Amino acid sequence: MNNKIRIAIVGYGNVGRGVKYAIENSKDMELSLILSRSPDRVKSKIPGIRVEHIDNTDSLKDCDVAILCGGSKNDLPEQGPKFAALINTVDSYDNHSCIPQYFAEMDGVAKKSGKVSVISTGWDPGTFSLERVLDNAFIPGAKTYGFYGVSEKGGLSMGHSDALRTIKGVKDARQYTHAIPEAIERVRNGENPELTPGEMHWRECFVVLEDGADKAKIEDEIKNMPGYFAPYKTTVNFITKEELDKSYSGFPHDGLVIGSGKTGAGNSAVIEYKNVWGSNPEATANILTAHARAAYKLSLDKKSGVFTILDIPPAYFSTYTREELIEKFM
Amino acid sequence: MNNKIRIAIVGYGNVGRGVKYAIENSKDMELSLILSRSPDRVKSKIPGIRVEHIDNTDSLKDCDVAILCGGSKNDLPEQGPKFAALINTVDSYDNHSCIPQYFAEMDGVAKKSGKVSVISTGWDPGTFSLERVLDNAFIPGAKTYGFYGVSEKGGLSMGHSDALRTIKGVKDARQYTHAIPEAIERVRNGENPELTPGEMHWRECFVVLEDGADKAKIEDEIKNMPGYFAPYKTTVNFITKEELDKSYSGFPHDGLVIGSGKTGAGNSAVIEYKNVWGSNPEATANILTAHARAAYKLSLDKKSGVFTILDIPPAYFSTYTREELIEKFM
Repeated sequence: MNNKIRIAIVGYGNVGRGVKYAIENSKDMELSLILSRSPDRVKSKIPGIRVEHIDNTDSLKDCDVAILCGGSKNDLPEQGPKFAALINTVDSYDNHSCIPQYFAEMDGVAKKSGKVSVISTGWDPGTFSLERVLDNAFIPGAKTYGFYGVSEKGGLSMGHSDALRTIKGVKDARQYTHAIPEAIERVRNGENPELTPGEMHWRECFVVLEDGADKAKIEDEIKNMPGYFAPYKTTVNFITKEELDKSYSGFPHDGLVIGSGKTGAGNSAVIEYKNVWGSNPEATANILTAHARAAYKLSLDKKSGVFTILDIPPAYFSTYTREELIEKFM
Repeated sequence: MNNKIRIAIVGYGNVGRGVKYAIENSKDMELSLILSRSPDRVKSKIPGIRVEHIDNTDSLKDCDVAILCGGSKNDLPEQGPKFAALINTVDSYDNHSCIPQYFAEMDGVAKKSGKVSVISTGWDPGTFSLERVLDNAFIPGAKTYGFYGVSEKGGLSMGHSDALRTIKGVKDARQYTHAIPEAIERVRNGENPELTPGEMHWRECFVVLEDGADKAKIEDEIKNMPGYFAPYKTTVNFITKEELDKSYSGFPHDGLVIGSGKTGAGNSAVIEYKNVWGSNPEATANILTAHARAAYKLSLDKKSGVFTILDIPPAYFSTYTREELIEKFM
C-alpha cells in the first residue's frame, strides 16, 4: 500500500531539478511524473522517471499535486490557470505588482475545478511575505525593510545577469547584488529611515567581452541602463570566461527582512529574518515542495480556491503530526 | 455601532499592562474588562477602566476573548481550564515539558464549551516554535538552535534573577544571559555541532548584598547552584542598590533561532530569526494580543478546542483584509 503524496513536476529547469531532490528528501512524497517541453532530453538525463510532453495533461490523473516550476514572465500566466483547472497546484509567481490579478484569476479557476492552488511562494514572495505580515501584526505599525545580498559574496541576480547579456559585445556576465551595511544599521537602530533603492543596495558586475568589444563604451552602457543599474552604485569587472566559470558559478543568494517599531510605553522592538542559500533555485524548490504538502492537506480538508503562505496553518508544511510538533518544536 | 473585539485582561502585572498598551494600538479592539486579585489597587492606577475581582467571572459575558496574563507555574494551570470553560482564551503557558499535558487538558475543556483556546504563545514558545517548524519543513532535517542574549547587553532572565534573590544575604539581584558568539558562528557555518548548555550561554549576575553578608560565600553559592548556574560560566558583580536600579532596570531580552542544513545537491542553507525587545513582557503582550485577534476570527469560523501558533493561518493575526495583505505585504 502506498499513501505517499504523488507529485508532478511541470518544467524541468533549475527549480524543477531542485524539486526532484526535495521530493527525495521528503518521506511522505513520491515523484510520479515530469512534464516538459523537451521530454526526450529530460528522459535521457534521468532514466527511470516518467516524463511526458507538457501538453499531455491526461497523464496528471495519477498525481495529487503539480508543482509549476516555470517562470513568472512567460510560463505561469498561461500554465497556472491551465493546470489549476485540472489538479492541485503550487507555483512561485513572483511579479509582485501583478500578484493581485494572478490571485483573482487562479481563485476563479481553482474554485470552479474544486482544486487548491497555492500561488506566489518561495522566499520572496513567500517566507519574506510571511515575516512582513507577522512583524506588522506583532509590532503594530512596524515598518519592514528587505535587503538582499547581505553575506560577503552577495546574491546572484538572474534578471540583472540576463540584462547584462543583452548588451552588444558582452559574451557572458553575472551580477551580484550587495546590501549596504550602513542602511541595515540605520534600520536596526530603529530610525525607520526613508531609503531609496540606491541607498539600500549596490551592484557588482562580472563581464566577459567578445573579441574586440569596446570596454569603456560597454561599462558606460551598463552603468546607465535605466531601472537595472542607473539608480545604483555599480562596479564593472571585466574578466575571462574561465574566471567567470571558476569563481562565479552557482546560484547563491540571500536576504534579510527587518521589522522595527515600538511596544507599549515606547520600548524598542526589532525582528530580523535572514536566509542564506547556497542555491537560490534549490531554496525555492524546497519551499515549493513543502507547500505541495500543504496543498494536499488542504484538499483533504475539502478546500478549494487560491491560497498563499498567509492562509495556511504552518503545521501543514510539516511531515510531523500535531502531537509530534508540540513535543519536538514548541 | 461597535464591532470591536472586546478583550478581557486576566491578571494585571507586567504582561497585563503590556496588553493594555497593545489593545490601545489595535484599531479593531477595545479593553472591556480587567480581572485582578486586587481590583481596588488596579482601579486606583487606571481610573475609567472596568476592573473586577478575578472570581467575578460573570462579568466576562460582555467580552469576546480573555487574555490570561498570569504565570505558568501557579496561575495558568488553574486559570487556563477555568476560563476556557467560559470564553475564548489566549495564554503564554511556557513550561515546555508540560505543554503536551496542558494542551490535552485545555483541548478537552474548550471543545466542551465550544470556545477557542490559543495556548503557549509569545516568543518562546510562540514565534520561535513557528520558526523551528518552518526551518525544518523548508530544509528537511535541518537542526535548529536557540540562543538568548545575543545583543551586547544580553537578556534579563526573570527566573535566574529570582533564584539569586533566594540566597541568604542577597538584598536584590538581576541576571543577564549572554549567548557565546563562537557557538553561534559554528552553527552558522553549518557544522551542526552538539552543544552543551554551558557551550551556548554564560551568565552575568549583578548582586546587591545585605549589610554584613559574606561576599565570597555568596559568590561560591551562586556559581555552584545546580541547574541555574553550575552548568555555566558565571560572573558575579557586587554593586549598590542605586547602581542596580540605575543601570539594570527594565526587562530587555532577545533571542536567535538558527536552522541549518542542506538543499538539493548539497548546497548550504541557513535561516536565522532574531528578535530584540526593549521590554520582554511588552513583547509577550503584543504577541498575545495578535493571537486574541486570531482566536476571535477562529471562533467566527465556528472552531473550538485548542490552537497553537502552528495551527493558525498567519493572516488571522493581522488587522488587514486578505486583499490588503496581498497588495501591501506579498
